[in-house]
Amino acid sequence: MQTVGVGLLGLGTVGSGVARLLLEHGDRIARRTGLRLELRRVVVRDVRKERGVVLPSRLLASDVSAVAQDPGVQVAVELWGGVGPARRAILELIDAGKDVVTANKALLAEHGPELFDRAHRAGRALAFEAAVAGGIPIISAISQGLAANQILSISGILNGTSNYILTAMAETGETYAAALRRAQELGYAESDPSLDVDGTDAAHKLAILAQLGFGCRVTTADIARQGIDRLDAADVRYAGELGYAIKLLATAKLCDGSVELRVAPTLVRHRSPLAEVRGAYNAVQVIGDAVGDTLFYGRGAGQMPTASAVVGDIIDTALGRAGITFRTLANWIEAQGTPRIQPSSEVHGRYYLRFLAEDRPGVLGQIARILGEHRISISSVIQHEAEEDHEGAPVPLVIMSHNAIEAATLGALCDIDRLGSVRPPSVCLRVEG
Amino acid sequence: MQTVGVGLLGLGTVGSGVARLLLEHGDRIARRTGLRLELRRVVVRDVRKERGVVLPSRLLASDVSAVAQDPGVQVAVELWGGVGPARRAILELIDAGKDVVTANKALLAEHGPELFDRAHRAGRALAFEAAVAGGIPIISAISQGLAANQILSISGILNGTSNYILTAMAETGETYAAALRRAQELGYAESDPSLDVDGTDAAHKLAILAQLGFGCRVTTADIARQGIDRLDAADVRYAGELGYAIKLLATAKLCDGSVELRVAPTLVRHRSPLAEVRGAYNAVQVIGDAVGDTLFYGRGAGQMPTASAVVGDIIDTALGRAGITFRTLANWIEAQGTPRIQPSSEVHGRYYLRFLAEDRPGVLGQIARILGEHRISISSVIQHEAEEDHEGAPVPLVIMSHNAIEAATLGALCDIDRLGSVRPPSVCLRVEG
Repeated sequence: MQTVGVGLLGLGTVGSGVARLLLEHGDRIARRTGLRLELRRVVVRDVRKERGVVLPSRLLASDVSAVAQDPGVQVAVELWGGVGPARRAILELIDAGKDVVTANKALLAEHGPELFDRAHRAGRALAFEAAVAGGIPIISAISQGLAANQILSISGILNGTSNYILTAMAETGETYAAALRRAQELGYAESDPSLDVDGTDAAHKLAILAQLGFGCRVTTADIARQGIDRLDAADVRYAGELGYAIKLLATAKLCDGSVELRVAPTLVRHRSPLAEVRGAYNAVQVIGDAVGDTLFYGRGAGQMPTASAVVGDIIDTALGRAGITFRTLANWIEAQGTPRIQPSSEVHGRYYLRFLAEDRPGVLGQIARILGEHRISISSVIQHEAEEDHEGAPVPLVIMSHNAIEAATLGALCDIDRLGSVRPPSVCLRVEG
Repeated sequence: MQTVGVGLLGLGTVGSGVARLLLEHGDRIARRTGLRLELRRVVVRDVRKERGVVLPSRLLASDVSAVAQDPGVQVAVELWGGVGPARRAILELIDAGKDVVTANKALLAEHGPELFDRAHRAGRALAFEAAVAGGIPIISAISQGLAANQILSISGILNGTSNYILTAMAETGETYAAALRRAQELGYAESDPSLDVDGTDAAHKLAILAQLGFGCRVTTADIARQGIDRLDAADVRYAGELGYAIKLLATAKLCDGSVELRVAPTLVRHRSPLAEVRGAYNAVQVIGDAVGDTLFYGRGAGQMPTASAVVGDIIDTALGRAGITFRTLANWIEAQGTPRIQPSSEVHGRYYLRFLAEDRPGVLGQIARILGEHRISISSVIQHEAEEDHEGAPVPLVIMSHNAIEAATLGALCDIDRLGSVRPPSVCLRVEG
């Protein structure tokens, strides 16, 4: 049986999971793949530290060159995370002739084109199934399974922390702050949750998916993003009354030859597949011109789900499949170049607008007039009871628009917020479906 | 650019879709894959018949040898359906050195081992993504993306017709017969729907998935199956009241080293991902020991979704990926051999039982006593009002069991049906989750 040497960079949560799969389930993987995956070297910062997995100490090393210079290693796995050192390590590994597997979404979102080019020129494979949506094989679905399609849109719940918080807000009515605290207590959110809740993490993953789906170079900087950290519990409740869940959606959509890219809290109709994704799960909806709408669902993070994707990539790389996939993909992206990102002046959709307006005659008329001036037509209006219990307290006014230009909608909001009878800032959320 | 010759057997619904993708979107596929897929030959029964796709008449042929003997064809696509002639054609194509793509689930479920062996010995690839769940890339997810996992269970809604009918029964309360008629009017069911509604079609697909998931030879004959054609609207309603949807689930599950295989109407808890699959959609839940639970959802049939999977397979085969996948899979299945199918005496689970019992003292006691004698413990009981509006009319009695041996449950049902106070046949449905 053929033996394939594996070198591992990093022995944190996911790294320990990968080591466990390779060491404890090596026989099973060998039966299934015909390959003996041999863990030859693990690069860690401190070789003396205690770890969650028992490794022979001869495997531990403190420098990338231990992997890069080991002729017995064919596949190197980068699980350090972060950008600078990981980037340098991967370039060194590629230059040393290794195929590389990585779960590093931030790195790919920032430096994907450079790493793709380098690996492609060197004739090496770069595999990154674990970088998006944990164990869900969404990278291979888009780049292989749906290859016969023109992808029309990719829309995903890509951050489990945010989805856990949004689910809690919807099901218990609690505030963002309270739901975040609970998520932290339960280990679903880190003590500094910024990158999860401000949309950055989802934008990293979307940049990767958009490159695969549309064959073009996209980095995080191309993606308009808005997090859930300023979301008001009242809007979650009003959306629910209107028949919608609010989800942090990461969307890449083909519109008139341009690609619309965004990460934002979005209203999604109840009972649609994405609206039903609860808790820390991830899901990605992919629409292709031939296949129609598909959905891929599972755990988007965690030790073993992510390790499942990493080891899947090691197998794919060792069998030679990942090399074919990467070569094909890199050629396509090279030929397609940079896409036209849809400018915000062209972005359009339906919007949920919520104003806090004084409860007196004429205010609704003023708001409706300004919306009309910006050519935003109203689909439905709900005026809620005042939240504060005194006369003259502002009342929440929720307006759903028909299809409208986003820039005009934001312009109208700006004008409305200048009315003396409205308490700014008003809220504007995208509606899908 | 490399050109790959494609030969097509069959130009029905799916065949026309495949031809359209190859002819109308050849440039797009070439940009994406670096391959020019050239449709060289289409074998049809009547070369003069009008078709949904315009083909140069020089492409049409009436005999498989036109494809088998064309040295310019590398990939042959079998879309005839049916078993006998398709089997002979595929064997001829393999012997002539062609890689083969097929969407023929019945053929693979009946003769999979023979076709696998022949292709494997000849060093050819056999690809069949389109045979299960239309455009959803579930075959590649199980055989590649989740390859690092021990698959624990595969549970799918694999027949769109049945799911359409069950959804209609649940949402409108109509009978099976009425829902079937509507499905037929709308084109979701054929005029003879037997294979769809009696579980045979789902069993074909399950046989294929079980082979991939557990690496063993399974044919349709190994699968206990029950359709939806005798399902009573009342049971759909009572299940709904208890918080469950009834779905035609195809399940392959690892239990104590054996594989439990079944297709049956099954109660699935509301708001779980499978329960939320409505209409003609398909979905497959795969649970792996590392990845946890995943779900793959989309259109399970129809011209273009199926053509999407077929052309995906043609691309995979032409790029050489399908060859690697098939070789790996065939080796694994050859080594694993035939699994131990769990005998019905060992199958256990929770069950929904519904009796029509005379509304008089002691009847519930008799039923409960018999269940107790068979060691079936009761989780909940609901006695409904009589459906018929006269005194002494039998009342429906719904009992949910705790975990119980299926054979014992059926034995108890048999004894209960012999009671003078019960109107047979009583109903027993499996409960999942």
